[in-house]
Amino acid sequence: MLRTTTCGALTIANLGESVILCGWVQKSRDLGGMTFIDIRDRYGITQLVFNMDDNKELCESARSLGREFVIKASGLVVERSNKNLKMPTGEVEIKITALEILNAAKLPPFLIDDETDGGDDLRMKYRYLDLRRNPIRNNMILRHRMAQSVRRYLDGLDFIEVETPVLIKSTPEGARDFVVPSRMNAGEFYALPQSPQTFKQLLMVSGFDRYFQIVKCFRDEDLRADRQPEFTQIDCEMSFIEQEDILNTFEGLIRLLFKDLKGIDLPEVPRMQYADAMRLYGSDKPDTRFDMAFVDLTNLVKGHQFPVFEQAELVIGINAKGSAHYTRKQIDELTEFIKRPQIGATGLIYYRHNEDGTIKSSVDKFYDETQLKVWAELMQSEPGDLVLIMAGGTDKVRKQLSELRLEMGTRLGLRDKNKFSALWVLDFPLLEWDEESERYHAMHHPFTSPKPEDIALLDTNPGDVRANAYDMVVNGTEIGGGSIRIHDRTLQALMFKHLGFSAEEAQKQFGFLMDAFEFGAPPHGGIAFGFDRLCSIFAGLDSIRDVIAFPKNNSGRDVMIDSPSTIDEKQLKELQIKTDLR
Amino acid sequence: MLRTTTCGALTIANLGESVILCGWVQKSRDLGGMTFIDIRDRYGITQLVFNMDDNKELCESARSLGREFVIKASGLVVERSNKNLKMPTGEVEIKITALEILNAAKLPPFLIDDETDGGDDLRMKYRYLDLRRNPIRNNMILRHRMAQSVRRYLDGLDFIEVETPVLIKSTPEGARDFVVPSRMNAGEFYALPQSPQTFKQLLMVSGFDRYFQIVKCFRDEDLRADRQPEFTQIDCEMSFIEQEDILNTFEGLIRLLFKDLKGIDLPEVPRMQYADAMRLYGSDKPDTRFDMAFVDLTNLVKGHQFPVFEQAELVIGINAKGSAHYTRKQIDELTEFIKRPQIGATGLIYYRHNEDGTIKSSVDKFYDETQLKVWAELMQSEPGDLVLIMAGGTDKVRKQLSELRLEMGTRLGLRDKNKFSALWVLDFPLLEWDEESERYHAMHHPFTSPKPEDIALLDTNPGDVRANAYDMVVNGTEIGGGSIRIHDRTLQALMFKHLGFSAEEAQKQFGFLMDAFEFGAPPHGGIAFGFDRLCSIFAGLDSIRDVIAFPKNNSGRDVMIDSPSTIDEKQLKELQIKTDLR
Repeated sequence: MLRTTTCGALTIANLGESVILCGWVQKSRDLGGMTFIDIRDRYGITQLVFNMDDNKELCESARSLGREFVIKASGLVVERSNKNLKMPTGEVEIKITALEILNAAKLPPFLIDDETDGGDDLRMKYRYLDLRRNPIRNNMILRHRMAQSVRRYLDGLDFIEVETPVLIKSTPEGARDFVVPSRMNAGEFYALPQSPQTFKQLLMVSGFDRYFQIVKCFRDEDLRADRQPEFTQIDCEMSFIEQEDILNTFEGLIRLLFKDLKGIDLPEVPRMQYADAMRLYGSDKPDTRFDMAFVDLTNLVKGHQFPVFEQAELVIGINAKGSAHYTRKQIDELTEFIKRPQIGATGLIYYRHNEDGTIKSSVDKFYDETQLKVWAELMQSEPGDLVLIMAGGTDKVRKQLSELRLEMGTRLGLRDKNKFSALWVLDFPLLEWDEESERYHAMHHPFTSPKPEDIALLDTNPGDVRANAYDMVVNGTEIGGGSIRIHDRTLQALMFKHLGFSAEEAQKQFGFLMDAFEFGAPPHGGIAFGFDRLCSIFAGLDSIRDVIAFPKNNSGRDVMIDSPSTIDEKQLKELQIKTDLR
Repeated sequence: MLRTTTCGALTIANLGESVILCGWVQKSRDLGGMTFIDIRDRYGITQLVFNMDDNKELCESARSLGREFVIKASGLVVERSNKNLKMPTGEVEIKITALEILNAAKLPPFLIDDETDGGDDLRMKYRYLDLRRNPIRNNMILRHRMAQSVRRYLDGLDFIEVETPVLIKSTPEGARDFVVPSRMNAGEFYALPQSPQTFKQLLMVSGFDRYFQIVKCFRDEDLRADRQPEFTQIDCEMSFIEQEDILNTFEGLIRLLFKDLKGIDLPEVPRMQYADAMRLYGSDKPDTRFDMAFVDLTNLVKGHQFPVFEQAELVIGINAKGSAHYTRKQIDELTEFIKRPQIGATGLIYYRHNEDGTIKSSVDKFYDETQLKVWAELMQSEPGDLVLIMAGGTDKVRKQLSELRLEMGTRLGLRDKNKFSALWVLDFPLLEWDEESERYHAMHHPFTSPKPEDIALLDTNPGDVRANAYDMVVNGTEIGGGSIRIHDRTLQALMFKHLGFSAEEAQKQFGFLMDAFEFGAPPHGGIAFGFDRLCSIFAGLDSIRDVIAFPKNNSGRDVMIDSPSTIDEKQLKELQIKTDLR
């Protein structure tokens, strides 16, 4: 045995024991004739002590150790005179009688410490050193615990984890597939799954009743946003259920995770219609840690010759409580914010509800104070509040004001990372119009069931058809979504038709699923959670990168192993493909 | 709620309850004015009863149901007059008051029954129907339970499950990689991992101490044997350990799985040197459900002018206890068996130890009975035994006799699927000579540590160097293997040199790992189990195919979804590759 215990285990209860520890040199200091070394492993840090008077050779060899050397140290557990009660092992130290260097270490290119001096590129190149740092390693432990909790919960509810294939078939719907040339079937390709969607539905047709999988999925997209080409989902499906069953089951999962991982009793998750979310927050994933809901002023403000409002389809405002003190400069900043190309607004209207009860607006030329008082009534503004108003086309202005609302939430400290607010958003539209391809796309995916009462609208007003689809949102981030699926061949064929598939194309791409529906498919539905995203929320991180052990950068590269890379001509020959660089 | 309970839940305790069940029509029969329908779901089967006299319309609609129709049935739990005590639900039936067809079903192309009339091709094309059959679905449930047990055990021992990347880098060692063209880095390719080997070693360098993962791996090999292009491993690694720690930890895992999944208390797993396994059983994965060990007769039989023995490097025999009654015809069958091209032997020598104590051999021309009695002593044969002897070059004859030993084991009923015998095989050779490439290959992989006492042999007798490598074998099948790894840059570089890598190649391919070793790598080692194989053993199957939900056929095709397939010209353009069919 190389060691008898770990560097996190010894306490005052072990006094007098002979122990052997293995680990990394965290730091070392000489104090007169003594040398103290902190030895670190995954479990903690223990102080080793060497004394020149006791054993000169041993103490000198301890003084020769560099940071991150791997050592094996044997000795006796003794009480520390200078106790560190902040550490579990802080009351003891090990009086060392034998020391062995298991491996030397070059000086790391950055500090292995909670706060490091390493930049992103360096950290990624030496990710194996970055992973030594507590914050990063703790993320991985959190991720592990999360996976165990998910499995325990779902296993307890009779869900079966089934592995679905990674080498599947490329389909034209959705994002871009990664493909894998087949050597045995030259000229043909597998695709890596964007999700196990069709397979989990087939498992329902097979009568598996309750399926889940924590599973890697793949999307070949440009990685501007916080995305990774490979990501992990908690993928679930249930048979003989209604939407209510799914919402209850998975609300239970999320509440368990909050309890297990954060010690938080998440209250019952409120539900909101998609249409209301868009109307009140301009977003299908509103951050409900704070309210600041939109108020519709359109009817109120029309007819006063103010061109911006006269031409607008929608005029909406938010009440930034207690912000009447905002200076002209601060309001200019907000205006700049919404004028940024990503948001693209043209201007901001506002009024200050002053502490003295007077109201001062940026459109005083068009509206007198009596009129503004009516606005204030509708806006429920009080002395001290600042109301921000935007106008324009409905979809556009909602999106823009949504951004401004989030910005104000941040400025007002209403978006605390340690506060959590979850929300179900329900009844998403089934289809959304795509300007570029000039056809409807499935908002969720082509297997989502329309609401039965809306099916008749498919032919006349496809954009108005609501789906049995739902998202869970935490702190303004979509952490999961799903739907009740179509389980009837005719309806599925109709859906493909509305998505612009010919009958032949639909059969070629998804015939196996539609055929399966003819052999007794049960009503079913499911949900998938973004495991990385959920983990990043629990870890209090904005990015998913540091909850992934070996992430890729924005160009899809793993800079540590230097991948992707060129491959041998021989490999290309065997696959019967050629590169064709332009 | 669509249903109030499942089809496996109702017993005599539920008499008088109003229930709603959903499921598939398993079978239906009419008896006078009554109709009985067995409704099936994952949890069981329940009998529904309809009575013409009570409700003619309902009963007639029940009579219209076909096999595999999906129905929802409401009714009252009543006691059965004709009880079936073999079924958990067999004491009750449901007197139906309302019936709804949730989905009709075409007649399935094969029987959904434990024994089916469907051939392999049909079963694979309609795998979603095949998965409805109990034996297949039970395999998947077994697999699920196995995964949960593995995780519970390893989590309990502080192992952390870490997801390693699927899109990695192609390396020339080992089997053929599947590759994935990169769009963002055109002309370059990712590879799918054959195992997370280097990543788990990096996690040890990171101080993760104990890692595991149940993980998909990929190998682009011709699939003659019972192999799948994608397969699953239980992948594990530990730091600051010696071989003994690994053997103990994972023997514990295997014993737990036997207990959890089969209710079997597996005894302590015996250990055998690789050299002994080869000498005694001609195999590095001997089936130890029976002994029938090889006996070396070489010295004994030489010098009697029998050319086959005179020219042989090795003469070995096995004692087929109680088989002296084998007829000439049966012995001819054995001779045919070993002459098959896969085995390639030229002939079989044997003697019968008759019940009357006489010994009759196929080489009586060269050996008299006195001499044969000495053979018998060495072979420990007794009246009633048949001894089978082969001769030739050492490696070849061992392999051939190993096949014959297994064949005799099967014939003698010594290879019962319900009996289990596990074995550790230790101290594998580090390198094996490859005739084709005229160089040594790593027997395990290039990261395996040689035994310290054998390192000196690397330059003089590379083939004699033993590795700190071990396999676990159950019933003659290798279920897992691993090794203590190299954790020193110099030794790793030496190893690559012996494998024919130039220093530049080694740095290009594995520089990240060798660099990592310079920053304080701990001593470490690990093991990986074939999850599919282990599952097939527990399920009593010869093939891994039916423990995989959606397997591929021998040409790497998924015939259900028809994959691989051609992809759009647009996709190829974006990836900047071309097919180049010959």
